Amino acid sequence: MKQITSIQNPHIKSLVQLQEKAKARKQSGTFLIEGKREISIAIKGGYEIETLLFLPELCSETEAHQFSENAELIEINKEVYQKLAYRDTTEGILAIAKTKSLRLSDLELSENPLILVAEAPEKPGNIGALLRTADAANLDAVIIANPKSDLYNPNIVRSSVGCLFTNQIATGTTAEIIAFLKERKINFYCATLQNSTSYHTQDYTTPTALVVGTEATGLTAAWREEATRNIIIPMQGEIDSMNVSVAAAILIFEAKRQRGF
Amino acid sequence: MKQITSIQNPHIKSLVQLQEKAKARKQSGTFLIEGKREISIAIKGGYEIETLLFLPELCSETEAHQFSENAELIEINKEVYQKLAYRDTTEGILAIAKTKSLRLSDLELSENPLILVAEAPEKPGNIGALLRTADAANLDAVIIANPKSDLYNPNIVRSSVGCLFTNQIATGTTAEIIAFLKERKINFYCATLQNSTSYHTQDYTTPTALVVGTEATGLTAAWREEATRNIIIPMQGEIDSMNVSVAAAILIFEAKRQRGF
Repeated sequence: MKQITSIQNPHIKSLVQLQEKAKARKQSGTFLIEGKREISIAIKGGYEIETLLFLPELCSETEAHQFSENAELIEINKEVYQKLAYRDTTEGILAIAKTKSLRLSDLELSENPLILVAEAPEKPGNIGALLRTADAANLDAVIIANPKSDLYNPNIVRSSVGCLFTNQIATGTTAEIIAFLKERKINFYCATLQNSTSYHTQDYTTPTALVVGTEATGLTAAWREEATRNIIIPMQGEIDSMNVSVAAAILIFEAKRQRGF
Repeated sequence: MKQITSIQNPHIKSLVQLQEKAKARKQSGTFLIEGKREISIAIKGGYEIETLLFLPELCSETEAHQFSENAELIEINKEVYQKLAYRDTTEGILAIAKTKSLRLSDLELSENPLILVAEAPEKPGNIGALLRTADAANLDAVIIANPKSDLYNPNIVRSSVGCLFTNQIATGTTAEIIAFLKERKINFYCATLQNSTSYHTQDYTTPTALVVGTEATGLTAAWREEATRNIIIPMQGEIDSMNVSVAAAILIFEAKRQRGF
């Protein structure tokens, strides 16, 4: 079995690139997953694991092998582990996994889908938070319009606490996504301040997408103009600011309530 | 007018303590606020400003004076400003403000109050997020049970984006808060996994407190045993984990919806 004990090793250097550069992830079609729980969830979610890197003091070869029989096993030492791992935890295992297709056409939707669309979320942490809520609500899909970060950014992987692997996810331009929703006759309700109706007066029991924009600038005009309806969460405080993942959760769970969970 | 140009100045050293130590804030009864918007909101919210420290390149003496006529003005230089300020922004003003009472008995509630109670939130950022949602919903009050951080922690001040100053806030032990709610005949609904009913089946149109615990361990037994009702947000995903501020927002806005906003 392969052993790597130097952070100067070219393979390790390429893995550091995988953590740091979207381009490296795109070119190789792979990304890194850290932690036993996350790796298990990814495997359960159909992600293919190419390689498992384990630190024998914390995770035995046998244990590593149990995650995936087909993955290459590489034993690493503490220095290499610390170079690649983000967390302070002591799990001792990292996986190199293949990214999945993020094409709209690959989404498999139920007959009466409930979808979240988020346009250009500003922070990877926001995407992670949206994915957690989407998992809790068992949404059909999460679609990111005009993404600013690639979905396999390590900050998204981490902040989603595994929900990157449990959701169906697609990306696309705003125009592509609007066309996708119209073609499939999915009503879409856009959270916006302009010309909008209170969210709780609308009916989300038929095929529905809930669309949220950024905290700073909201949704772009195309969404507002094409929307089935523009909706607003009534804000009665002194400060008109709501975290995007909080706003999305309020809308999603109102739809879930109407659908009787 | 006083000028301070050295980070070795004892007054500046005491302000660094104010940023870093809950004890220093408690002993002096003061804390620091950073940024024009936040200082304005704090003043509007009835906070008394003792001192304004301004960096003349970014904020003129006249502008600083306009915030508060009674506050002492101190001109500082860039080095001192950078020592005290957390943000990279260029606002050039800091305020030393008096903390407010956080006593339960000082809360002024409406006739049909809607209150959020959070027990021992783990992270200052979570409290900030809860305060943002509480402001948006114009809750009567936010009560923190057994707080782990003092409320004037700079991470709470910042993450609340001013909502620390727009909400009525109190702290207390779990026993004190339960007694307070019972005395005032406020129903309290505790978000918990044990013996709980779906949150959307309950009626929140009468005096109501919604009670949330930590993500890791939930609410302590006292809350669950004394609750008017234990409630649960149905989780239909693969990963049973919801951010506490997201869970609180779903509950709060269901109550707001039932009350017709």
